[in-house]
Amino acid sequence: MGLTLRLGGAGAFAALLLLSLSPGTATAATRHYWIAAVPVPWTIVPNGRDAINGVPYDAGRVPFETVVYRSYTRKWERQLPHAYGIQGPLIRGRVGDTILVHFKNLDNLVDHPHSMHFHGVHYPFGSDGSFIPGHSTRGANVKPGDSFTYRLVAGRDSVGVWPYHDHSPSMMESISGGLYGAVSIRGAREPAPDREFVVFLAALNDFMTIDGRAFVGNTPLFQARVGDLVQWDVLTLGDEFHTFHVHGHRWRQPGGGIVDVQTLGPAESFRIRWREDTPGTWLYHCHVESHMEQGMIGLYRVTR
Amino acid sequence: MGLTLRLGGAGAFAALLLLSLSPGTATAATRHYWIAAVPVPWTIVPNGRDAINGVPYDAGRVPFETVVYRSYTRKWERQLPHAYGIQGPLIRGRVGDTILVHFKNLDNLVDHPHSMHFHGVHYPFGSDGSFIPGHSTRGANVKPGDSFTYRLVAGRDSVGVWPYHDHSPSMMESISGGLYGAVSIRGAREPAPDREFVVFLAALNDFMTIDGRAFVGNTPLFQARVGDLVQWDVLTLGDEFHTFHVHGHRWRQPGGGIVDVQTLGPAESFRIRWREDTPGTWLYHCHVESHMEQGMIGLYRVTR
Amino acid sequence: MGLTLRLGGAGAFAALLLLSLSPGTATAATRHYWIAAVPVPWTIVPNGRDAINGVPYDAGRVPFETVVYRSYTRKWERQLPHAYGIQGPLIRGRVGDTILVHFKNLDNLVDHPHSMHFHGVHYPFGSDGSFIPGHSTRGANVKPGDSFTYRLVAGRDSVGVWPYHDHSPSMMESISGGLYGAVSIRGAREPAPDREFVVFLAALNDFMTIDGRAFVGNTPLFQARVGDLVQWDVLTLGDEFHTFHVHGHRWRQPGGGIVDVQTLGPAESFRIRWREDTPGTWLYHCHVESHMEQGMIGLYRVTR
Repeated sequence: MGLTLRLGGAGAFAALLLLSLSPGTATAATRHYWIAAVPVPWTIVPNGRDAINGVPYDAGRVPFETVVYRSYTRKWERQLPHAYGIQGPLIRGRVGDTILVHFKNLDNLVDHPHSMHFHGVHYPFGSDGSFIPGHSTRGANVKPGDSFTYRLVAGRDSVGVWPYHDHSPSMMESISGGLYGAVSIRGAREPAPDREFVVFLAALNDFMTIDGRAFVGNTPLFQARVGDLVQWDVLTLGDEFHTFHVHGHRWRQPGGGIVDVQTLGPAESFRIRWREDTPGTWLYHCHVESHMEQGMIGLYRVTR
Repeated sequence: MGLTLRLGGAGAFAALLLLSLSPGTATAATRHYWIAAVPVPWTIVPNGRDAINGVPYDAGRVPFETVVYRSYTRKWERQLPHAYGIQGPLIRGRVGDTILVHFKNLDNLVDHPHSMHFHGVHYPFGSDGSFIPGHSTRGANVKPGDSFTYRLVAGRDSVGVWPYHDHSPSMMESISGGLYGAVSIRGAREPAPDREFVVFLAALNDFMTIDGRAFVGNTPLFQARVGDLVQWDVLTLGDEFHTFHVHGHRWRQPGGGIVDVQTLGPAESFRIRWREDTPGTWLYHCHVESHMEQGMIGLYRVTR
Repeated sequence: MGLTLRLGGAGAFAALLLLSLSPGTATAATRHYWIAAVPVPWTIVPNGRDAINGVPYDAGRVPFETVVYRSYTRKWERQLPHAYGIQGPLIRGRVGDTILVHFKNLDNLVDHPHSMHFHGVHYPFGSDGSFIPGHSTRGANVKPGDSFTYRLVAGRDSVGVWPYHDHSPSMMESISGGLYGAVSIRGAREPAPDREFVVFLAALNDFMTIDGRAFVGNTPLFQARVGDLVQWDVLTLGDEFHTFHVHGHRWRQPGGGIVDVQTLGPAESFRIRWREDTPGTWLYHCHVESHMEQGMIGLYRVTR
């Protein structure tokens, strides 16, 4: 059901969008993502310790089951290898692209409804994925075993990184369990970076995590070489505000000043790019001290 | 007392201000507002429920008395109808205008002093309205039954939306009870919006409220049509930081990047404008999850 | 040990830096600072009261010992007079300058290691001052009695104010005790301000302090005259987010909008400048209400 209506709605919607798209959309693509909400075992502190402060965290080694987004081949036939992190697959697009996200709820852990709600991109109301009794459409409340296709368009005003997350009736518990991911939109003529780091800051159980892991040695070890165009995509969801810091580097905020620490609150996100010029084994971390102490810290290694 | 002094002070002050005002202030007006601090009964959750999560909040239906700012005719003879929200009247001006706010303390509920302190606009020290023993003037500590006139000037650097609030010795309890409002300044040649929404985010009793109300069905239902120039004036006071989000839309921060979520902390405020192009029944909310769960969420309906 | 290596590393590093420096670095200087971490007695509320709310704080009059940064003559022979505040000496530079900070750990209070980690400026990895087992160099873990020289360079992207702080294994307790300070970098052709105010917002014991002091009468009384070029350098460290406000004034955010309140989170910092034009005895404070109530408020007096 709904397919014709949905296409009809999207058609009218696409016409409205024309002014938002960049010139030269002739090369715009339609991209398909097959994604499911699925339980996985997860471990927050695989090595069981905070290496910097020399504190053991045995409880952090115990895996627990949680529901996350994972990528699949067409029609959810086979789960694809996952890059890294508790967050779902990185959904990529370029300005002008249509992105079809085919979502299936494979959550047999708690048998809850789920959905996908996307920031930054354009979509008709039917693809909003947010539960509002009496208003929302089927895509806001996808029951276990059911599926839904969200239709998104990357506008010129969508360039950058944005979160996506559950917005169904179970969103509060599912987001705190890791049911989120990132959308990455590149400008029509923007070059690809040489290195691309996704930094998802979030509370998880009693830890403050980066990509679902806590403490140096567990959080991602990002690597680059001098001369690389490096891209940091920084996001957060939940209740906490963070200040993202990378040692030994500075960046310009969009249209603004130069900083080496930047605040982000729940559902905010930003993209930082620089041409790497400083070798070292640098810390990156949230500069809220208690968050750093609870694990929100990692290493960034730059070699010549 | 004080009238001559005040006019004298304001005269010298006005001379200093000339460089801040836009050219073409020939049409600048003097606007008068008659405002009182007055007790009203208030109800945070009139329909007694969180419709999205299906949770009853019977305690939220019980009205309580609290002191707010309300608008009056000349010399506080008759209270004017109030637009909406717990916040006081929207004080409007254009660049170059002088705004005289005639304030009277009609608080017979707790018999406390009150005052008005304004953000964003220019004023001489005597109109600051902030209590500092040994320094502040009468307008910082207006006793029940007393009145005071604040003299404000809208400079070119005052364009946008700003909070006003009690800054008397009773400010801590009165602000948390709703004794605040918004000042809205329009540029000399800036067009008026077709739709104007004031979103005041604040904790109130055990709820997180928008304009003093909690949960969809109680918070304002904002409405617009495709093609409308829509203006959101977003403010907060108190202890909390928020991240304001509107579904299905994005906006450009002043001189900065494009976002669909924006942080604001106590006494920060911002104005967002867009030409509406996307029909739907959209959620707007604070994206701090616990705030959303405690009621800081509403609906924005766009029709063709 | 390490001197030759360090110079070698810094030499290679300086070559990489050339593109970051402004033209006309011919006048660039090498500046030396001799700084130690040293215990001092400190009092948060010398006058024992919150003058605005008329509340006594006798506990705040009791001095306690805490470790701070203080400035010395060459080879730490004699401690220099300290300007004001719990924070360490203001480290100044201009774009193109090399700044050598000679640090000695004179902490005989708790016998902990300390270090200095600098924001905003350029430095080779060996001058990062951050403890990472297996990676960091001697400057990240300076034992009592030991010393280390950090080699910093002020790039064009270093203009403004930045925090420095302990990043050794004892950083969590030492930062909350006041072991921090500010680096102030001026552009190559930027004029010096007539008045320069350093506002360091931080929790200290049970108070919210400005430069280590709480409540009007204890926090700095900043002073200026009409016509002065006034500079506010605002910083914070710790766990808290703040919103800095000055009454009766507004400023432009870098490349952004005009505000009179600005959020800053842990390790964020910003510089505000204006030409003073408004006499009065103005409040400056954090606008988070509970922080204001716990002492984060002071006076700024402008005379003709």
